[in-house]
Amino acid sequence: MSLADKLNFDAKGLIPALICAEDNTPLTLCYMNRQAIGKTLQTGKVHVFRRSRGRVMLKGETSGHTQEVKEIYLDCENNSLLIKVHQKVAACHLGYFSCYFRRYNPETDTLEITEPRIFDPDEVYGPNH
Amino acid sequence: MSLADKLNFDAKGLIPALICAEDNTPLTLCYMNRQAIGKTLQTGKVHVFRRSRGRVMLKGETSGHTQEVKEIYLDCENNSLLIKVHQKVAACHLGYFSCYFRRYNPETDTLEITEPRIFDPDEVYGPNH
Repeated sequence: MSLADKLNFDAKGLIPALICAEDNTPLTLCYMNRQAIGKTLQTGKVHVFRRSRGRVMLKGETSGHTQEVKEIYLDCENNSLLIKVHQKVAACHLGYFSCYFRRYNPETDTLEITEPRIFDPDEVYGPNH
Repeated sequence: MSLADKLNFDAKGLIPALICAEDNTPLTLCYMNRQAIGKTLQTGKVHVFRRSRGRVMLKGETSGHTQEVKEIYLDCENNSLLIKVHQKVAACHLGYFSCYFRRYNPETDTLEITEPRIFDPDEVYGPNH
């Protein structure tokens, strides 16, 4: 038995995982398969199944902005995970601490940026990322 | 234009939405389609596409435990939403404030309940729910 044995994966073998900071700040939503969960437990760092690349990757593999696992929770139906992490630098590849840095304003139908940018993606990923 | 026009829905016309309390406590992960987003904006209360029933429902329709929308955020790739809400009573149909009330203990491979139960599901949904 292991954590993965308790979970309901979807038809593609994936389960969504909410990643939050230790103070509950929502950082990102990622997808994990059995292998990603195994590597996350083994290393203590979040590993995700990157759907665009079709493979398991260490979150922060390129940037060094890794996520150290603090706590793992299951939802009431075993359909998703909540992982609380210590986030190095920032979670978002656009340079913000959280991927949820744009708030929707329904009155104007516009998006408002609610966080300062912490790093320059060109410097971290190179100009052609 | 509207919020839904800014989003990437999956092949089934759905997008995942993290629902958090005003203090960022993660409550649940739900799925929305265009109609659910429209009704959520129109009423100010979270509506979800309940996959098990194949239709849009007011979250808390049966229990009365509705979620009043405070803020809506988009992730950096328009693939998910974060909705901050004022939660009436509790979000979880098992009687807990959050659906993430079970923490995984990797040393013992067991789940530990981390919250008090707020209501009795039998009383709210009836004994045969």
